[in-house]
Amino acid sequence: MSYKYNIALDAMGGDNAPKKVVEGLKIFLKEDNEIAFTLFGIKKEIDKCLKKFDLCENQRIFIEDCEKLITNEMSVRDSIKLGKQSSMWKSIESVKNNKCDIVISSGNTGALLVISKLLLKTIDGVDKPPLAGLWPNKKNLSIVLDLGANVECNEKNFIQFSKIGSVLYSVLFDKQKPHVGLLNIGSEEIKGNETLKNTHTSLNLSNNNFTYTGYIEGNDITKGEVDVIVTDGFTGNVALKTAEGTANYITSEIKNSFSYNLFSKISYLISYPVFSQIKKKLDPRNYNGAIFLGLTSPVIKSHGGADGFAFYNSIKLSSKILRGNLINKIKNNFVNGKK
Amino acid sequence: MSYKYNIALDAMGGDNAPKKVVEGLKIFLKEDNEIAFTLFGIKKEIDKCLKKFDLCENQRIFIEDCEKLITNEMSVRDSIKLGKQSSMWKSIESVKNNKCDIVISSGNTGALLVISKLLLKTIDGVDKPPLAGLWPNKKNLSIVLDLGANVECNEKNFIQFSKIGSVLYSVLFDKQKPHVGLLNIGSEEIKGNETLKNTHTSLNLSNNNFTYTGYIEGNDITKGEVDVIVTDGFTGNVALKTAEGTANYITSEIKNSFSYNLFSKISYLISYPVFSQIKKKLDPRNYNGAIFLGLTSPVIKSHGGADGFAFYNSIKLSSKILRGNLINKIKNNFVNGKK
Repeated sequence: MSYKYNIALDAMGGDNAPKKVVEGLKIFLKEDNEIAFTLFGIKKEIDKCLKKFDLCENQRIFIEDCEKLITNEMSVRDSIKLGKQSSMWKSIESVKNNKCDIVISSGNTGALLVISKLLLKTIDGVDKPPLAGLWPNKKNLSIVLDLGANVECNEKNFIQFSKIGSVLYSVLFDKQKPHVGLLNIGSEEIKGNETLKNTHTSLNLSNNNFTYTGYIEGNDITKGEVDVIVTDGFTGNVALKTAEGTANYITSEIKNSFSYNLFSKISYLISYPVFSQIKKKLDPRNYNGAIFLGLTSPVIKSHGGADGFAFYNSIKLSSKILRGNLINKIKNNFVNGKK
Repeated sequence: MSYKYNIALDAMGGDNAPKKVVEGLKIFLKEDNEIAFTLFGIKKEIDKCLKKFDLCENQRIFIEDCEKLITNEMSVRDSIKLGKQSSMWKSIESVKNNKCDIVISSGNTGALLVISKLLLKTIDGVDKPPLAGLWPNKKNLSIVLDLGANVECNEKNFIQFSKIGSVLYSVLFDKQKPHVGLLNIGSEEIKGNETLKNTHTSLNLSNNNFTYTGYIEGNDITKGEVDVIVTDGFTGNVALKTAEGTANYITSEIKNSFSYNLFSKISYLISYPVFSQIKKKLDPRNYNGAIFLGLTSPVIKSHGGADGFAFYNSIKLSSKILRGNLINKIKNNFVNGKK
């Protein structure tokens, strides 16, 4: 039997690898029969892990043995020195060589971005590939980019991010002409730095694959009025991590209050079904996977601390990207649209 | 009877003014007898409002009649045109003329910052006055600055913010040598832009009124390991508003889940005492009031949407700043320390 797509999995990246990778794979295999997988890592360990989950190497699951691993603590320079011997390098290379269609890694983000840029070409018209992520809001999900790939961005980059982010949004949520907002510190024309003001003017004048709705502020991200939020990698990364920190702070305060005394503990037990619904809805594992976009093949960065269920969601995201033909749509947009 | 301090209140700024101002004042008057107040605004309205709260103009409460008001929608240019006729201008001017010791306004932030800079001098050694705010964390509160006064900052500004923020922290929380962190997108030396890297090197080498602990990321802000978090006004503003948006999103999801059906509504009623504790603890009104620092007199910006209780907390904050002799301590630090 032949499969429509082949996903490359860096089986050794992040915490609890390869267990979480195999666990996520196991969940996904049950609901899909079009996609094969190639797992890159220490074969002996992967085999052992597959066995634990009642799986084995077969026509749908391939293993590529790799000797070396890139750890989270490793500098980008040292990661590159390991080169072709590492599971991360080999998994990205498999996409370059058209053996696989997309790659997922939970490993060292810095190394992943640099090796991806080294091995994969940038799409014509894209100067700086951004890292995009799904961000929950009161209505559904939005896309925020850049989340950390490019610390400094100019007007051209922001316009390219708007286009790329809009194609991604259209593919994932089936909406033509998504609404794009530019992250700023006020909605008035005079706010922000010169780059933002110039981008604002250009986006207002341009005719694109999106509708530009103007500046938005940090508190607007979760309102859900805007589909694609464009910012530089520094601001995007700080915003993302501040949101994570805030969520963590609030949930820990709630936990503390409900475990304060006997009464609060009983209250928690009674409310448990409701809390478990809330937990399910707010679970960040639901939207695990940042997408490194603008290269000739997409690269998915799963959270380093992701577990099996979170990793499964990265696989699901990858399958949507493949089926939605994301890369060709981005390419078309840059060929046909104004650069 | 004479009073030790006199606080200027812009009685007309923000939503529901002057009611919230008078309401906040009423709460504060009960717990303090050293401070007098001057309310700037439309006398007729203020008199009416004071009466509602069983107060009146007396030896402790003065009213300065002002004809004009700066609204939130007004541009900074239009606000300045109104000039000396507005309650905001007059209240800041009273501090300049030493009639009052500190000013609080809930009005138009842009106008407040610009008029303050116009009327009040900058402390020698301070290039750009930052806006500082209290940020709750798992242990207590930290101070984050700049929250929006200066979009672009250089190394010198960041070092000045570290000093100023540390004096503020020492005054409010009685801790010598607070821990200062520089907001970045990773803790490694190579992360961030050149300005941050240079600041990091300088802070590591300098001997100051604080202990520099290195880079911190967005998710570290709420951990409470660092007392003073230094960043530029763009990043700080986005981080603050993203945190507000995240808190708002989570609480609204919790509310929705607890009002979903009869069972969840009953669960909520049972857990109500615990929820009311949580609400009290996470209430942003507890730390209402951003502090515009680096001028010869402090200026307090209360949230535009603040109510009476929130405004009361701004008054309380102002009283701590006065009693702690903040401005002189900042001045001394810039005279004695290395600039």
